[in-house]
Amino acid sequence: MSTSAKLYEGKAKIVYGTDNEQQYLTYFKDDATAFNAEKKGTIVGKGEINCTISSALLELLATKNIPTHFIEQKSPREMLVKAVKIIPLEVVVRNIAAGSLCRQTGLKEGQKLPFSLVELYLKDDNLGDPLLTSDRLTILNIIPSEQSQILKDYALQINQYLQEFFSLCEIILVDFKLEFGFTQEGEIILADEISPDTCRLWDSQEQDQNKKVLDKDRFRRDLGKIESAYQQVQQRVLTQIEKLKNS
Amino acid sequence: MSTSAKLYEGKAKIVYGTDNEQQYLTYFKDDATAFNAEKKGTIVGKGEINCTISSALLELLATKNIPTHFIEQKSPREMLVKAVKIIPLEVVVRNIAAGSLCRQTGLKEGQKLPFSLVELYLKDDNLGDPLLTSDRLTILNIIPSEQSQILKDYALQINQYLQEFFSLCEIILVDFKLEFGFTQEGEIILADEISPDTCRLWDSQEQDQNKKVLDKDRFRRDLGKIESAYQQVQQRVLTQIEKLKNS
Repeated sequence: MSTSAKLYEGKAKIVYGTDNEQQYLTYFKDDATAFNAEKKGTIVGKGEINCTISSALLELLATKNIPTHFIEQKSPREMLVKAVKIIPLEVVVRNIAAGSLCRQTGLKEGQKLPFSLVELYLKDDNLGDPLLTSDRLTILNIIPSEQSQILKDYALQINQYLQEFFSLCEIILVDFKLEFGFTQEGEIILADEISPDTCRLWDSQEQDQNKKVLDKDRFRRDLGKIESAYQQVQQRVLTQIEKLKNS
Repeated sequence: MSTSAKLYEGKAKIVYGTDNEQQYLTYFKDDATAFNAEKKGTIVGKGEINCTISSALLELLATKNIPTHFIEQKSPREMLVKAVKIIPLEVVVRNIAAGSLCRQTGLKEGQKLPFSLVELYLKDDNLGDPLLTSDRLTILNIIPSEQSQILKDYALQINQYLQEFFSLCEIILVDFKLEFGFTQEGEIILADEISPDTCRLWDSQEQDQNKKVLDKDRFRRDLGKIESAYQQVQQRVLTQIEKLKNS
């Protein structure tokens, strides 16, 4: 397989076309950004870790009948995926209050939510990825409401599987962001990545508010030991996947 | 009637207790603020104009069976109202895209919305009055969903009456903000004010984007001629009310 043109370069990944028009090759970078790219940096080894964790988790979800773009991890930083047209919505699932939810509503970080909250944000850097109410989603006319309901339903299913899985890794899944896309046949499938860049993950055995953070918040909040936190997640995820395969 | 203690001082009004515990006296100030009080100023005569317009419009809505806190305009700047406990939600109705809706979603100012959009914002200056999705409203547990539905239903009815009325004044009702409160008997009634401070009002006979603005956006956006715009609204509203009374 040979790659062709660079189709898209985002903050953490590059997407290339391949000689098969139904497949893309995604390259995971070490670049890290936060606060709508106002903060920039590098997390050494992040690309390999995120590609590896995402590959493992997308493969896991596929076994649970969640359709995903994942085909194969081609190299430590490269994932072969189905070609999709990304839906410009960030689908965020929240189990515990953190981040912008706390800043915007005054809820206390760490407070367990009474239900898993699925929120849709418009994927638009110029607008700062604004939260959408269902009426705003309708007015912006991005996708029909039946399709946004499909995204929400998938998101809640994925949340259930990932919560269970991370709990086996002694990790609390606080919240995470998903992106979906349309295949050339018009099917909605899970795309993008699932990694410490896109999930808030807390070590369930650690009580210290800062030490327990195993995700990009270490970078956002200058908590240090970013690389080792990402490595820790990778190690626990791979160990648990191995256990599940052997059980 | 003698007033007693100052109960509350807001950005544009002061609320006093009276010797009747079921009644408050609201005093309308000339102070103007915008952008969550980052911009401050004075609009000479605003207090009298807003008190007069609000009195007229609240009285009008009462004739349409909308329960309101209005009892009587006691003086140019003073409105006697029913004592209510304000619900900490700003209920915004939008007919045409403007203001934060445009900044947040990229919709073009002046674009007619496909339906009248009712939005709830948390009334909290420290948080910058954030927009609430229905799920966030549920989680914050401010009022039960049956009650927030009552607010939305009233807001849409009020929108219909006000749109009709302002159209007779040759004014387009772009959007407006309402506040509601609970009476001592637990009834939900319309409170606060309806004025060029709380409505976006465009002169329907004027095409010029800046000249047509007859509301606080003249202050927010330094468009000048603020006082005369407010006076213009007052004059048209009072003239139309008079016509309706005589018809």
